[in-house]
Amino acid sequence: MRDLLREVLEANRRIPVAGLATLTWGNVSGVDRGAGVYVIKPSGVPYHRLDEESLVTVEIETGRVVGGTLRPSVDSETHRLLYQAFPAIGGITHTHSTHAVAFAQAGRDIPVLGTTHADNFDGPIPCTRDLTPAECETDYERNTGLAILDALDGDCASVPAVLAAGHGPFTWGATATASLETAIVCEAVAEIAIHTLALNPAATPPEHLIRRHYRRKHGPGAYYGNAGPRRTSEEDPE
Amino acid sequence: MRDLLREVLEANRRIPVAGLATLTWGNVSGVDRGAGVYVIKPSGVPYHRLDEESLVTVEIETGRVVGGTLRPSVDSETHRLLYQAFPAIGGITHTHSTHAVAFAQAGRDIPVLGTTHADNFDGPIPCTRDLTPAECETDYERNTGLAILDALDGDCASVPAVLAAGHGPFTWGATATASLETAIVCEAVAEIAIHTLALNPAATPPEHLIRRHYRRKHGPGAYYGNAGPRRTSEEDPE
Amino acid sequence: MRDLLREVLEANRRIPVAGLATLTWGNVSGVDRGAGVYVIKPSGVPYHRLDEESLVTVEIETGRVVGGTLRPSVDSETHRLLYQAFPAIGGITHTHSTHAVAFAQAGRDIPVLGTTHADNFDGPIPCTRDLTPAECETDYERNTGLAILDALDGDCASVPAVLAAGHGPFTWGATATASLETAIVCEAVAEIAIHTLALNPAATPPEHLIRRHYRRKHGPGAYYGNAGPRRTSEEDPE
Amino acid sequence: MRDLLREVLEANRRIPVAGLATLTWGNVSGVDRGAGVYVIKPSGVPYHRLDEESLVTVEIETGRVVGGTLRPSVDSETHRLLYQAFPAIGGITHTHSTHAVAFAQAGRDIPVLGTTHADNFDGPIPCTRDLTPAECETDYERNTGLAILDALDGDCASVPAVLAAGHGPFTWGATATASLETAIVCEAVAEIAIHTLALNPAATPPEHLIRRHYRRKHGPGAYYGNAGPRRTSEEDPE
Repeated sequence: MRDLLREVLEANRRIPVAGLATLTWGNVSGVDRGAGVYVIKPSGVPYHRLDEESLVTVEIETGRVVGGTLRPSVDSETHRLLYQAFPAIGGITHTHSTHAVAFAQAGRDIPVLGTTHADNFDGPIPCTRDLTPAECETDYERNTGLAILDALDGDCASVPAVLAAGHGPFTWGATATASLETAIVCEAVAEIAIHTLALNPAATPPEHLIRRHYRRKHGPGAYYGNAGPRRTSEEDPE
Repeated sequence: MRDLLREVLEANRRIPVAGLATLTWGNVSGVDRGAGVYVIKPSGVPYHRLDEESLVTVEIETGRVVGGTLRPSVDSETHRLLYQAFPAIGGITHTHSTHAVAFAQAGRDIPVLGTTHADNFDGPIPCTRDLTPAECETDYERNTGLAILDALDGDCASVPAVLAAGHGPFTWGATATASLETAIVCEAVAEIAIHTLALNPAATPPEHLIRRHYRRKHGPGAYYGNAGPRRTSEEDPE
Repeated sequence: MRDLLREVLEANRRIPVAGLATLTWGNVSGVDRGAGVYVIKPSGVPYHRLDEESLVTVEIETGRVVGGTLRPSVDSETHRLLYQAFPAIGGITHTHSTHAVAFAQAGRDIPVLGTTHADNFDGPIPCTRDLTPAECETDYERNTGLAILDALDGDCASVPAVLAAGHGPFTWGATATASLETAIVCEAVAEIAIHTLALNPAATPPEHLIRRHYRRKHGPGAYYGNAGPRRTSEEDPE
Repeated sequence: MRDLLREVLEANRRIPVAGLATLTWGNVSGVDRGAGVYVIKPSGVPYHRLDEESLVTVEIETGRVVGGTLRPSVDSETHRLLYQAFPAIGGITHTHSTHAVAFAQAGRDIPVLGTTHADNFDGPIPCTRDLTPAECETDYERNTGLAILDALDGDCASVPAVLAAGHGPFTWGATATASLETAIVCEAVAEIAIHTLALNPAATPPEHLIRRHYRRKHGPGAYYGNAGPRRTSEEDPE
């Protein structure tokens, strides 16, 4: 549990360092499946004041705060729904990174435009549908999670990222660190995509190139990396 | 008063650190309502040479310099008019940040394109009308303030930022620090907006999503943050 | 002379720090009118290896190297011509800064789109005509200077910057430091201009606003700054 | 050999410092022609964990790993083919730098738009043809190299850079350091090109200006730099 607190703290601190958000924006959480809890950034605390004591521990089943003295991030219920829906998820990151948010605000998926994307995501990063007025009125954060589930259609593995329409990216992975690194990748491919579309609005890489790159790093025939059958937190394009 | 000097000094020093201006551009002021004065950056002094002694104290009522040996920022009269018009304002920041200035030069409001904006501003950040030749000729800085008042229409609370047409952003808040942080947010939403409009010139988030986000953080039902009923300097989107 | 070497060294070192160029690109020079010489960056030396000993001293009248053991910047003859043509110039900076070079490559003047520009330049930053094949063949660097003179039409004071077509910006001022700071401003206004034109291709601020801002800082009625009748190295918009 | 390891290590560490890639992306290699080997970054190791021990030594002739305990970069076979095809190449860099990748994803050459480009490259930086499905299926990395050879048409000297279509830039030079610095230049000219094309889609500098700049720095009449007849790792525009 001490390890989880340290990892979540460090992953949160990497958000501003990686240029993914400023002030108090963004949040990372990490899960302890054995204890049935996740640890998340508190609401409204700037990154330079974060410490392990300020982190908040929440029960996955009930949403009850079981550790820490502060209130959890307002987005906590979105995290919780994703942890409930996908047992394989060990960490979740939400940011307001510039270019990924631009796609979210434009209501557009981030398309697969090259190998940097395909090294990490097996398809476009989807943008959710808009929420209805009723979904915004009550249980908004939980409904944001439900719209994300709609966009994922039961599969959290092939594309570990989504854009909440009009809002911004959520990413996940086996650990809090992995989810943060996927947030870095998501912003990078969004920025490259914006420039690509400006240079060539019809850009579309051959499907066989895209397949090849994804399979270099993911699945049974993967040959990328140096840590046994598969590396988790370093599985980025080279 | 010593505390105010220190806060205004630190807020000014954050301008270049946050990438909002270079050289001597930009200025922050903070007010002491009890003493009827505000403290502001001196004119033409680069940030690395600023210290408490170089700051200038100005009487709100008269504009008379009552502390410090240097001349105040040339924009001081704009600050003074805003302090006179809105007793709730405790600090004001003016920057030449790249993307907010681009909107000001384009003569366009920064539209509400998503939740990053709505978390902070209850509507578009308005761009003022152009000043007339007569308004530019005499009392230019005071007339800049009057054009800002026209754009705000009596309400400084719902959108604590404005773009002086052809010039750049002014932001404010309960304290000098809060005004500086709003300047950071203003630049961030401007940059995201430029990319959003390039991806989708017709982007418009649902009004109910925007309402929801503003109300998560502002007003009686707000549930964002960790400091009692309402937090001031950390009220940024998460 | 020792002071001049130190100033030129420091101004050159600020080029990469200010993000105006990388590797060995760009160069700053400063003049000693009494001695009839200028000091300039050596050719092809990266910034982190620059020291006072590596700087090169050149005679304005003849172009002869009279100090230092290295060859001067290949652009030295362009600097020399400007020093000959304009006795008021005390320092010159040439960079390959991203957005100013984009205007130079596009063959477009940087237009006056707002007060950030008008605080520093009394008109557009002109882009020179293209050089002829003959001008490129012989005495290319001197001919670059002549094309700059054509663009300036005898006036180096109102707009202390120019874009060599297809190449990049040259800026100048009373000192090497002033020329470097004008290069920083030139890049900043170029970047803001690109975003402004994307938001509003027809953006044009009122002429009376532009006049007013230039006159706040320049000429007999100027009231900006804190150092006597006029400040040199800090005359930037606030 | 110790020197080569140190140089390759340092060049790899400059990739994230120069902003050319993040996490584990990108790789630099350097060659020892006498020993018939090259040294390359291991696969999937983040830059802050790289040390000389983690580097991998590969035989040029066979592709056999002859030094180090980790697997080489997945792109190693592309490096190897280039070393085999061009005996003059001493170092190779591959990055995922934002703007160069945007051109690669757009399937466009980086055109010669000005002197910053011409100072370094004697023509456009070509984008390769797309690979066929068969080329992606088997020996993908070697086939990437073959497509690069097609694009170069036997000449690795005049333009020491290429864009692998849909993927990203490969650059080379006499040393690992030179190849890394060419990667920096490639990204810089790509970024400037994107802004230039936005300002003027038809921008085309006069051919005689371009010729002149390339010849200032390359070939028998070159007069740039300070190290004898020709300098290698510092041959960048000034």
